[in-house]
Amino acid sequence: MENINDDIEAYLQQVVEEEQNHDHDGSMSSFMEEIGMADKEMFGVCVTSSEGKVRKGGNADEVLPLESVSKALALALALEDVGAEKIFQHVSKEPKGDPFHSIAALEEGDKGVPSNPMINAGAIAVTSMIQGADGEERFIRLRDFIRRLADNPAIDYNHDMYEAEEKDLNRALFYYMRSHGVVSGSEEDSLLPYMKQTSIEMSCVDLARIAAVFANNGKAPGSDEQLIAPDNVHIVLTLMFATGMYQSSGEFAVDVGIPAKSGISGFIMAVVPGRMGVGVIGPALDNSGNSIAGMRILGKLSKRWKLAAFSSH
Amino acid sequence: MENINDDIEAYLQQVVEEEQNHDHDGSMSSFMEEIGMADKEMFGVCVTSSEGKVRKGGNADEVLPLESVSKALALALALEDVGAEKIFQHVSKEPKGDPFHSIAALEEGDKGVPSNPMINAGAIAVTSMIQGADGEERFIRLRDFIRRLADNPAIDYNHDMYEAEEKDLNRALFYYMRSHGVVSGSEEDSLLPYMKQTSIEMSCVDLARIAAVFANNGKAPGSDEQLIAPDNVHIVLTLMFATGMYQSSGEFAVDVGIPAKSGISGFIMAVVPGRMGVGVIGPALDNSGNSIAGMRILGKLSKRWKLAAFSSH
Amino acid sequence: MENINDDIEAYLQQVVEEEQNHDHDGSMSSFMEEIGMADKEMFGVCVTSSEGKVRKGGNADEVLPLESVSKALALALALEDVGAEKIFQHVSKEPKGDPFHSIAALEEGDKGVPSNPMINAGAIAVTSMIQGADGEERFIRLRDFIRRLADNPAIDYNHDMYEAEEKDLNRALFYYMRSHGVVSGSEEDSLLPYMKQTSIEMSCVDLARIAAVFANNGKAPGSDEQLIAPDNVHIVLTLMFATGMYQSSGEFAVDVGIPAKSGISGFIMAVVPGRMGVGVIGPALDNSGNSIAGMRILGKLSKRWKLAAFSSH
Amino acid sequence: MENINDDIEAYLQQVVEEEQNHDHDGSMSSFMEEIGMADKEMFGVCVTSSEGKVRKGGNADEVLPLESVSKALALALALEDVGAEKIFQHVSKEPKGDPFHSIAALEEGDKGVPSNPMINAGAIAVTSMIQGADGEERFIRLRDFIRRLADNPAIDYNHDMYEAEEKDLNRALFYYMRSHGVVSGSEEDSLLPYMKQTSIEMSCVDLARIAAVFANNGKAPGSDEQLIAPDNVHIVLTLMFATGMYQSSGEFAVDVGIPAKSGISGFIMAVVPGRMGVGVIGPALDNSGNSIAGMRILGKLSKRWKLAAFSSH
Repeated sequence: MENINDDIEAYLQQVVEEEQNHDHDGSMSSFMEEIGMADKEMFGVCVTSSEGKVRKGGNADEVLPLESVSKALALALALEDVGAEKIFQHVSKEPKGDPFHSIAALEEGDKGVPSNPMINAGAIAVTSMIQGADGEERFIRLRDFIRRLADNPAIDYNHDMYEAEEKDLNRALFYYMRSHGVVSGSEEDSLLPYMKQTSIEMSCVDLARIAAVFANNGKAPGSDEQLIAPDNVHIVLTLMFATGMYQSSGEFAVDVGIPAKSGISGFIMAVVPGRMGVGVIGPALDNSGNSIAGMRILGKLSKRWKLAAFSSH
Repeated sequence: MENINDDIEAYLQQVVEEEQNHDHDGSMSSFMEEIGMADKEMFGVCVTSSEGKVRKGGNADEVLPLESVSKALALALALEDVGAEKIFQHVSKEPKGDPFHSIAALEEGDKGVPSNPMINAGAIAVTSMIQGADGEERFIRLRDFIRRLADNPAIDYNHDMYEAEEKDLNRALFYYMRSHGVVSGSEEDSLLPYMKQTSIEMSCVDLARIAAVFANNGKAPGSDEQLIAPDNVHIVLTLMFATGMYQSSGEFAVDVGIPAKSGISGFIMAVVPGRMGVGVIGPALDNSGNSIAGMRILGKLSKRWKLAAFSSH
Repeated sequence: MENINDDIEAYLQQVVEEEQNHDHDGSMSSFMEEIGMADKEMFGVCVTSSEGKVRKGGNADEVLPLESVSKALALALALEDVGAEKIFQHVSKEPKGDPFHSIAALEEGDKGVPSNPMINAGAIAVTSMIQGADGEERFIRLRDFIRRLADNPAIDYNHDMYEAEEKDLNRALFYYMRSHGVVSGSEEDSLLPYMKQTSIEMSCVDLARIAAVFANNGKAPGSDEQLIAPDNVHIVLTLMFATGMYQSSGEFAVDVGIPAKSGISGFIMAVVPGRMGVGVIGPALDNSGNSIAGMRILGKLSKRWKLAAFSSH
Repeated sequence: MENINDDIEAYLQQVVEEEQNHDHDGSMSSFMEEIGMADKEMFGVCVTSSEGKVRKGGNADEVLPLESVSKALALALALEDVGAEKIFQHVSKEPKGDPFHSIAALEEGDKGVPSNPMINAGAIAVTSMIQGADGEERFIRLRDFIRRLADNPAIDYNHDMYEAEEKDLNRALFYYMRSHGVVSGSEEDSLLPYMKQTSIEMSCVDLARIAAVFANNGKAPGSDEQLIAPDNVHIVLTLMFATGMYQSSGEFAVDVGIPAKSGISGFIMAVVPGRMGVGVIGPALDNSGNSIAGMRILGKLSKRWKLAAFSSH
C-alpha cells in the first residue's frame, strides 16, 4: 500500500513528539496508577499495512494490558466459534451510550440482555460463549487466538494484575445476566475468562499487527491464511465503529471516522479496511476513558491519509 | 458504475415482487393510517448511481412525506449554513438508542442537549440553526435545498398533513431545550420549520437522486456541481450509519452495513459512498419504526453487490 | 392545647436565635437571589394551635412567595372542586424521588402521568383541574381560597416575580402532558394559573394559620367552619408526609415525622394533626432545596413536643 | 382498647367471607405457585390490640413464608443492634418507587446505596449489619428476635423453600453494593441471612402479635417488656408507611392510611400506633405485588374504625 512507505516512520515519530510537547490534563485510570505499569509520558504508535509492512514511533514496544481492547478480540473468536446468530441471541448490537460498566441498562428493555459486546456486560456474555470445556480452556483458546492474530507466541496475561483487579462489579453483571438466563455456568467457567482476558499484555506493535488482520479482511497480513471470516470482520468493525470508544464513540466516528477500540490502559486499536492496522498508546485518559494522545494521533493520521469511513476517495 | 447496468431493473422488479408475496405483520404508523395516503401493499425501490444512472422497480414514483428522513437533509443544510463546530455545540453526536421522541434523555448528562441530530429533539435544534430571518425563510431555504438535491423544483410540503400533525410533543421538546438555552427564538421561528419539513413529499426516485448526491461526495450525480461539502457528507453519513434507523441502527449497520435514514412513512434513504444512492418505500413498519420491506430489500442489495461499509472488496 | 402556652413564644425566640448563630452553608435559590426579596439571615417561625392561639418568633411577619408550598394548597382546592377520584385519574399518588422539575419521569410507566401532586408536573395538572371558566378565574378562586384559609384578605401574588419567572420548563411539562391527554386547554387557561400561584406571597403567620386549618381537620381554628373536607385533609397531609420535602421527604419523615411542604423561597408549612400548624422561614437551602433553618427548627419542635407521626404518646 | 371487643370477630369473619365471594383476577406469585404452599382461595385476618387481645377470622392460622414482610423485622433488629446512624450511612430513607428487585436504581445518585430498607438491595444491606460472628449467627439472632416479637418459639424458616429460591438476582445486588463498599463480607456471611429470612414462616396470628408490639410502642402487648426502642418503632413505621407496599405505597397511604408491609406470599402486616396490629393473608396479588384481599380488608377496617394516620379523631 502506497501509504506505508519509508517516510511514514518519520511522520509517526513527529506525531509522538508533538504529544510529548502537549499538556495532558487527563489522568490515568486509577487501576493503572495502582498497578504502576505506565506513566502519562508514554506515547507510542505502530502502523502495519494490510500487506504486513510495519512502521512505528515512540514507545511502540512497551507492553501493557489490553483492558477493553480485548472485547473486540473475544468477540471475533466467539463469532468464529459459535456464529453470529447464537451470539446475538444473548447480546444486542445497539449503540446505547451506556457507561461501560453500567448495570442499569441491563434492567431496561429486553431484561438482562446487554446492548452490545463492547460494554462489560456484553463482553462477559460474549466471552462465556467461546468454546471450551471449562473456564481455563476458554481462556487458553482466546489467548492462543490472540497469539495467532499478533503472530507472537509470547503473549500472555499478567497474573498480578489479574489478582489485583476489582471483581465484584463484574460479578454483579454476571449474576444479573444469569438470573435472566442470558449467561449460564459457574463464575469460574463463565466469568473468569473475561476477567483474565483484560489482563492480556502486548505492545503497540502487536496491536497493529492484529488490527492489520482485520484490515486485510481477516487474513494474516501478506499471506492467504484466513484467521477470521470476512463476515465476522465486518461485524467486529461495525460494532467498533459505533460503540468502540465508550461514550465518545459517535464523536470519534464523526471526527476521525475509523473503527477503533480503546482500553483504559491507554491503548487504542484502529482498523482501516483494505489499508492498515494501527496501535497507539498514551495512558492519560479523557472523561470518556479514551487515550487523549491516542485519539489525537489517530485524528492526524486520518486527516493526512484520508482514512474516514464515509469520505469517498 | 458497473453495478448499475440494464439487468438491475429486472432485479429491482424481482425484489419488489418478493415483497408482494411476503406477509407483512408490521403495521403502518397511526399517523399514516389517519392521513390515508399509503397502504401496506405499496412497495418501491429506486437506485441511482453516483454518475446519475437511474433504475427503479415497483411504486418508485409514488409520492409520500419524508418524515424523519428529512432530518438527514436538514442536517446537511445546517452544516453548510453554520458549520459543524456551531451545530455540535448545541447537539451531541452520540448514538444513544433513545426512542426518537424521547424527552427523558434530554434530562441526563449535558442538560437539554440532544444526543444526536437523528432524534426529534436533535433535529429540532438543527433545523432551528438553518439560516433565515424567520421561520418561513428557514423553511423555504430548506425546501429549495432539497429541490436542488433532488433536481426537482416541484417538491413541496403537504399542507393538510402539516395541519393534522400532533405538535405538543415537539413543543415540549422545544421548550425544554429553550429552558436550557440549547435553542432560542419563538415557536414560529425555531420550531415550526422542523414540523413542516417532515411533511415534505417526494418519491423514491427523488430520494435516490438525493442519496446519489451523498454517494457522489456531495456533487450532483454526473456533474461537478458541489451541493454539499465533502466533510459535511462524511458527517451526515456517519450519523446515519450509527443512528439513522431508530433503535435498530446497530442491527441494521451489522446486518446491512449501509448508512441509511428511515421515516415512519415507510421510506428509507440509503447511501453507498462512491457507488449509489437508494430510495425504498414500504409503509408497514417493525417495532422500531423502520420499513420492513425497505430493510429487507436493502439487505438483498447489500448482499448481492457487497455494499457493507467494513467489508473490504 | 397545653403545648401552646405563654412559654412557647420564648422558646420560639430561642430557636430563632440559635439559627442566627449557626453557619448557613446552603445558598438561596438563584431565583430568590435575582428577585432580591430575601437574605440568608432571615429566620422566623410561627405556631398556631388548632384552637387558634398564635405564638411566633423572629421574622415571622416577613412576606415572601409561597413557591412550592402552594402545591399543597392548590391540591386541597382541586380536591374540594372535583374530588379525589377525578384528580387521581390524571395524577398518581406515588413518592418517586424525582427532582421536582423532572420531565424524564413523565416518560416512564403511565405515559405523561405525573407521579404525585408535589412535583411540578403533578401540580400543573392539579391546578388545571381547579374549577373556573378560564385561567384567570381559576387563579382568582385559588387566591380567594388561600385568603380564607389564612383569614387574610390582603394576600395576593407578586406581579414582578411572576413576570420574572422562567416559564419554559413548565411549558415543556405542560405540552408533554397535553400530548398524552393528561391536561387539556390552552397555556393561558391551564398552565398560567399554576405559574401565578407560586408567586402568591404571605408571612409565616399566614402560613401557620393555614397549617392550623389542616391540623384542625379542615375547620377554621377555633371555629366550626369547615374549609376543607376531612377526607381531603387526610389526602393532602399524607402526600405532604411522603413527598412534601423534595428528595429528602423520606429523611424528613424519619427524622422529624411531621407532614410538611417546603418551597425554594425558604418556607416550610408543617401540620401536626389535632395539635398545631407551623410556618417557618429561612432562605438558605440544602441540596434538596429545603430550608436548612426551617428543617432544624421543626426538628427541635418535634423532639420537644413529641410530634412525630408514628410515635404513640 | 374499645375497638377490640367481642363483635370484632364476627366482623372479621364477615370481611373474609366477602373476599370469598369476590373474583380475584390477580395471580399468585410464580414462586408461591411453584412451592405449592398456598392457593388463591386462602383468606385470613387477625387483629391484636396493643393490650394483647386477639380476634381473628378465616385462615388466620395458616402458615406461610414472610417474604418481604421480613424486611421490616430485620430493620427493627438492625436498628436495635447497631443504631440508626450506622444503618443510614449504608442505606438511604427515600421512597423512590423503584421495583423491589431493581438494580438500576443502585447506579444513580449515591452509587451503590439503596434508596430504602424496603427494597431488596436495602434489605440485604440492613440484614448484613445485624450483629453476629457469621451468617449463621446473624440469621439465628434474627429468627430468635422474631420468635420473641411473636411470642412463638416454634417459628423457623422453611428449608425447602430456601433451597428452591432464585438467588442470582440477590447475588447481583450484593456484589454491586460490595463493589461500592456499601456491604462487606462474604456471600455466606452477609447475603445468605437475608435469603433465609424471607423463608421464615408464620401465621396471621403471629403477624398480628408482632404488629401489636409495634402498635404498643415497642412493648410486648399487655406487658412492660420493651422489645424495640420507641425511636426505632417510629423509624420502621415511617418507612413502612412511605415505602412498605412496593410501587403502590403512596396509593395505599392515601386510600388506607396505615403503616404496612406486604410480601409476595400474600401477607400484609399493618400497624395502628397505640391501637392494634393486624395480619392479613390473601395470596392473589395485584400488579404491584400486594395482596388484593389484604388491601381490601385493611381498607374496610380503616374506614370502619377511622385508622388513617392523618385523620384527626
